[in-house]
Amino acid sequence: MKADEWAKKIVGGDVRAASRLMRDIDDRMPWVPDVMKALYPHTGRAYIIGITGSPGVGKSTLVDCLIEHYRARDAKIGVVVIDPTSPFTGGAILGDRIRMQRHSTDSGVFIRSLATRGSMGGLSRSTSDILRVMDAMGKDVILLETVGVGQDEVDVVHTAHTSMIVMIPGLGDDIQAIKAGILEIGDIFVINKCERPGVERMEREIMMMLELGGHRDDGWEPAIVKTEAIKGVGVRELMETIVRHRTFRESPEKKRLFLRKALRIELLNNIRDRISQRVLEEVGQEEGLLSAVDEIIAGRKDLYSKSEEILNGILCE
Amino acid sequence: MKADEWAKKIVGGDVRAASRLMRDIDDRMPWVPDVMKALYPHTGRAYIIGITGSPGVGKSTLVDCLIEHYRARDAKIGVVVIDPTSPFTGGAILGDRIRMQRHSTDSGVFIRSLATRGSMGGLSRSTSDILRVMDAMGKDVILLETVGVGQDEVDVVHTAHTSMIVMIPGLGDDIQAIKAGILEIGDIFVINKCERPGVERMEREIMMMLELGGHRDDGWEPAIVKTEAIKGVGVRELMETIVRHRTFRESPEKKRLFLRKALRIELLNNIRDRISQRVLEEVGQEEGLLSAVDEIIAGRKDLYSKSEEILNGILCE
Repeated sequence: MKADEWAKKIVGGDVRAASRLMRDIDDRMPWVPDVMKALYPHTGRAYIIGITGSPGVGKSTLVDCLIEHYRARDAKIGVVVIDPTSPFTGGAILGDRIRMQRHSTDSGVFIRSLATRGSMGGLSRSTSDILRVMDAMGKDVILLETVGVGQDEVDVVHTAHTSMIVMIPGLGDDIQAIKAGILEIGDIFVINKCERPGVERMEREIMMMLELGGHRDDGWEPAIVKTEAIKGVGVRELMETIVRHRTFRESPEKKRLFLRKALRIELLNNIRDRISQRVLEEVGQEEGLLSAVDEIIAGRKDLYSKSEEILNGILCE
Repeated sequence: MKADEWAKKIVGGDVRAASRLMRDIDDRMPWVPDVMKALYPHTGRAYIIGITGSPGVGKSTLVDCLIEHYRARDAKIGVVVIDPTSPFTGGAILGDRIRMQRHSTDSGVFIRSLATRGSMGGLSRSTSDILRVMDAMGKDVILLETVGVGQDEVDVVHTAHTSMIVMIPGLGDDIQAIKAGILEIGDIFVINKCERPGVERMEREIMMMLELGGHRDDGWEPAIVKTEAIKGVGVRELMETIVRHRTFRESPEKKRLFLRKALRIELLNNIRDRISQRVLEEVGQEEGLLSAVDEIIAGRKDLYSKSEEILNGILCE
């Protein structure tokens, strides 16, 4: 299939063509960049909402609330779930299945879950590209759910137009480890499971942290919203706060400020990921890589000289 | 200073020369690879112990126990602490200071803490290089403390000879999110704060997870040790288990199997990090990168074409 035909199908809402492309994005198929180029002019319309928080804070329940809210207003929804935790914690696979079942009969909801890739990274490139495909498909709102722990995820959260950080009281803030760089860009702090004791303390701590952080360069004052998502408590206020933030950031200058940050990260990651592919080609994929390692083990080359040798084969000059 | 003179000082145990090199490693100074090449023949002797677990499980207390144990036997100790969490959680800086104070008068203990770097990654390269410098300095044992969440950290944990995963009962396993790829390489599972209720349940869950995981290719059966580190409970058994694992992996075949995995990751990361530096040089550092982004925002180029243009400037062919 030619790149522009493929793109046309996706823009026309063809779910199978979109799913196929998303799989190919994950597999780094060589034709992906051309399809992405053809899709590019059809993107930039979707509103991306990030939902970030440690496992167990109720992100999925909040995502469900948001889906229901937007579906009731006939908006088309995309959901991207990133879960880099181990199967031991019951994360990605199980959670995704439960959600899939609930919304699988609703053609207005498109859900895709992503796991982290191997040691050459690439999660953020996959995610950016997949968000862009959903955007081109005509999704009005895309929900991006992540635990917010790796550098890859920090990068991804930067692409959200409104970024929610979800916490729960009583865990002790040392447990709710969220990566530096994510807290700083939280537009809305959600204290979920607010029926638990310790809500006031948690609220005070968030406010203190925000004060310590100083003013944001876009001038937004992060909001704190208390919810008990499982019972729908506080969800209306949360939705209103999202609308308020969305309105706030509508001005051309603010949009430009955001775009600069988001595209800077996306461009760097795109370049880095494509180079990683090239490195693997250069050494001869896994087999070649292991031969290089064996040379180091045998003492014929040290690690640093071998690294330079491979680089010299790839880079100009 | 010439690379081999510098290396000679470090091998001779010069702490200032070592600290200087570690700082230069972090700053990606151009002379670092040559010093590392000169150090390389003097490495491979230190025993690296990884201590991985969520914030709040008592990693630092365990590290203190290990330091005391080894110092009582006159071993020279290096400690590398990786903490990618936000200042909000009180992690890196505070924890490091407390440890620093306790052991700062002991010249046999060298502590270095590392934070994650910007969006071009590089944590794992820094950490590998710093472990190698400590190795060259003649440290007998290096303790590597990490929360185990990002891909960078998974890579780093792979370089530990004995890898401990620390958990505590009663948190709910969904909270103790440790990245896939780290649990699989845990040689010893430590249930710390074992005075808390829920120890048996936690032990059963770990055993179940280990059974699900199947046999490891090196044949080691991961051990479970219960500790109350703050009171020294279980620490003796933990030390014995570390010795047992160390003895187990002494055979040349097992060492080779381990080295292949560890060096494979280190080589890839070294290459990747050096290319990232090159990308920034190519575009003209931050300023040039933002001009490229502005071209995309202005619609003169799409992201994918701009990425290719930059790549074409760097890569051969």
